[in-house]
Amino acid sequence: MIAEGMKAMVNGSSAIRAMFEEGKKLAEKYGAENVYDFSLGNPNVPAPEAVKEAICSIARDEDPLMVHGYMNNSGYEDVRGAIADHLNGLYGTDYAAKNITMTVGAAGGMNVFFKALLNPGDEVITFSPFFVEYRSYVGNYGGKLVEVPAVEGTFAPDAEALKAAVTEKTRAVILNSPNNPTGAVYSAADLEAIAAALREKEEEYGAPIYIFSDEPYREIAYDGVEVPWVPSFYDDTVVGYSYSKSLSLPGERIGYLVLPNKMEGFEEFASAVNIATRVLGFVNAPSLMQRVVARCLDEKTDVEFYDGNRKLLTEALGAYGYTFTEPKGAFYLWLKTPESDEAAFVNKAKEKHLLLVSGKGFGLAGWVRIAYCVSRQTVENALPAFKELAEEYGLLK
Amino acid sequence: MIAEGMKAMVNGSSAIRAMFEEGKKLAEKYGAENVYDFSLGNPNVPAPEAVKEAICSIARDEDPLMVHGYMNNSGYEDVRGAIADHLNGLYGTDYAAKNITMTVGAAGGMNVFFKALLNPGDEVITFSPFFVEYRSYVGNYGGKLVEVPAVEGTFAPDAEALKAAVTEKTRAVILNSPNNPTGAVYSAADLEAIAAALREKEEEYGAPIYIFSDEPYREIAYDGVEVPWVPSFYDDTVVGYSYSKSLSLPGERIGYLVLPNKMEGFEEFASAVNIATRVLGFVNAPSLMQRVVARCLDEKTDVEFYDGNRKLLTEALGAYGYTFTEPKGAFYLWLKTPESDEAAFVNKAKEKHLLLVSGKGFGLAGWVRIAYCVSRQTVENALPAFKELAEEYGLLK
Repeated sequence: MIAEGMKAMVNGSSAIRAMFEEGKKLAEKYGAENVYDFSLGNPNVPAPEAVKEAICSIARDEDPLMVHGYMNNSGYEDVRGAIADHLNGLYGTDYAAKNITMTVGAAGGMNVFFKALLNPGDEVITFSPFFVEYRSYVGNYGGKLVEVPAVEGTFAPDAEALKAAVTEKTRAVILNSPNNPTGAVYSAADLEAIAAALREKEEEYGAPIYIFSDEPYREIAYDGVEVPWVPSFYDDTVVGYSYSKSLSLPGERIGYLVLPNKMEGFEEFASAVNIATRVLGFVNAPSLMQRVVARCLDEKTDVEFYDGNRKLLTEALGAYGYTFTEPKGAFYLWLKTPESDEAAFVNKAKEKHLLLVSGKGFGLAGWVRIAYCVSRQTVENALPAFKELAEEYGLLK
Repeated sequence: MIAEGMKAMVNGSSAIRAMFEEGKKLAEKYGAENVYDFSLGNPNVPAPEAVKEAICSIARDEDPLMVHGYMNNSGYEDVRGAIADHLNGLYGTDYAAKNITMTVGAAGGMNVFFKALLNPGDEVITFSPFFVEYRSYVGNYGGKLVEVPAVEGTFAPDAEALKAAVTEKTRAVILNSPNNPTGAVYSAADLEAIAAALREKEEEYGAPIYIFSDEPYREIAYDGVEVPWVPSFYDDTVVGYSYSKSLSLPGERIGYLVLPNKMEGFEEFASAVNIATRVLGFVNAPSLMQRVVARCLDEKTDVEFYDGNRKLLTEALGAYGYTFTEPKGAFYLWLKTPESDEAAFVNKAKEKHLLLVSGKGFGLAGWVRIAYCVSRQTVENALPAFKELAEEYGLLK
């Protein structure tokens, strides 16, 4: 009955979501405190108090016809202006409301941009491993996702490999730093190399190649690591942002796109993303939440908390003999599976109530993702299970 | 630079939205009270007080990790259960949480369903005139929208014409009652005729043909007119609902799909719409608003208010000599243009600061839509302009 393209998805579904649902079932059976669910990027740090206050104050004191009504499909003019000003303060840019489109989360924003950009058969490159859903977001519009392996170990982007993968069909490159699932943060030097490679290819093919910089983890970086602003390295950059992690509002679906004036075809794209927002059925980003985030631009999530989890995990897993990538940002730990059969490792972990997501879906088998945006207690309680597993694999010396 | 498929849209854009933007400009120039903007279905009745209270109470008293966090992509189990129970109370059905999928408005729900259903080249039938965006919602997934004229004048659905339009490629029929833009409400007899026609065609082709019943105006009907529950006439029915009009929350993008057990392929579709919600980038319906609507299921919008506008307009426009369809539901008046050049009429109306939307985009030239979900004062102030226009056209005897 269902569409051909959906059949494989219904059978395969998302490994992440399947694990999340499984985790809920295990939690019902054994008690939530006895299940160590590292499957989903669902922040454990609550939204800042200011969010709560903004929600109540706007709902109580502002005109409900304005707060809950339709606005321009790209979002409230004042909200977009406030976000532009905020970015200008951070990055020395000169954005205005017209450069900002409010979106139904970063996922909505990416769909809107690819709807605006892609013709069937066009190619979009990303470094693997990568966020599972990119395949769908590109495929929804007939595009083809081309995977270029990041440097195994550090998972830094490989500009030479990227350059080699560009063809005349390449319309965009998705960057995601801080990275899901590896925790890598791309340095200024990385970005310069990528920009140089793409400029060369733009010239060769006489057509723009856009960077889509997917930045839901922009503020989550550790040890003072800098997260550079991608548009200052490369003009043809569109930024996708979400408040899911920075304000712990993943369920609210609120984010934005930045389309800088300098990008090739700015005016046309600004119209196209406005229209794509409408015709894809998003219509506009949720209205109350638009107004809430505009009041909370200076709020910060508790990066220290995630850093505590990170240190606890990396120290313990290191001591147990596991191989993994030291995360510099985001809240994921990317762990090498101690046996080549990744599914077997995920299952053994699950027997110990450790819920991890297989790397295969992210485009790199032999690894698993541990989402450590969980409570401290979950990390602490999980450590003995990780230790037992290490013992069974003979990792612990 | 932009996608081929977007170019025509960027040039044409939506007539409704263009008029909405134009209205804002005119209002800046002449003052909002001197512009009579009947362009957009943006309710003028504020959200009920209970919505405000629910927003504050949930934000203040419930666990922010739950309220703003990820949940199953189909929505919170308890919210879905509460909506199922509510429908069971209204329609004597036996729905449970699994029959309800929370969506980013009705527009999101329709996109999700067509993503789940359509293969490229499939056909979806609707009665014209119809809500402009159906063309995109079907076209997004490679489907073709087939227009069957409703009975001109009453704009009741024509079951015989529908039957004649069904081909082996027909996968679905979109019904929209109370109707945008005509205000027609389909009777039980209408629905029985449609159901009989479709059952015959299902048998002939040996494949299901689904009704997608788009019902954002379900509660807005006048003079005691009944709005029948479509799934009780035809098993292969999916209902799309939105709180945009019933709770005046159009900007919040909150609605749901009903997939009844009896529909052919229920289990498969329930999975497919769950996955489509994720892969299209909606991810889930906005979380706080899911919880808010579950607390406001018994709230009603002020239908009396819209009815007041309706009576004022229909009495006056009738007296001025205009020809129009008496609206039985929704908040649109569908008016025959007094000259065949519809664009010329829309422009003459605009010169008098009357913003109307041309019928062509709805699939029926020679008519315009008047969205009377505006303030009473706007209707009152607009009447002299309608009268002048009638005089210029020699309608007023």
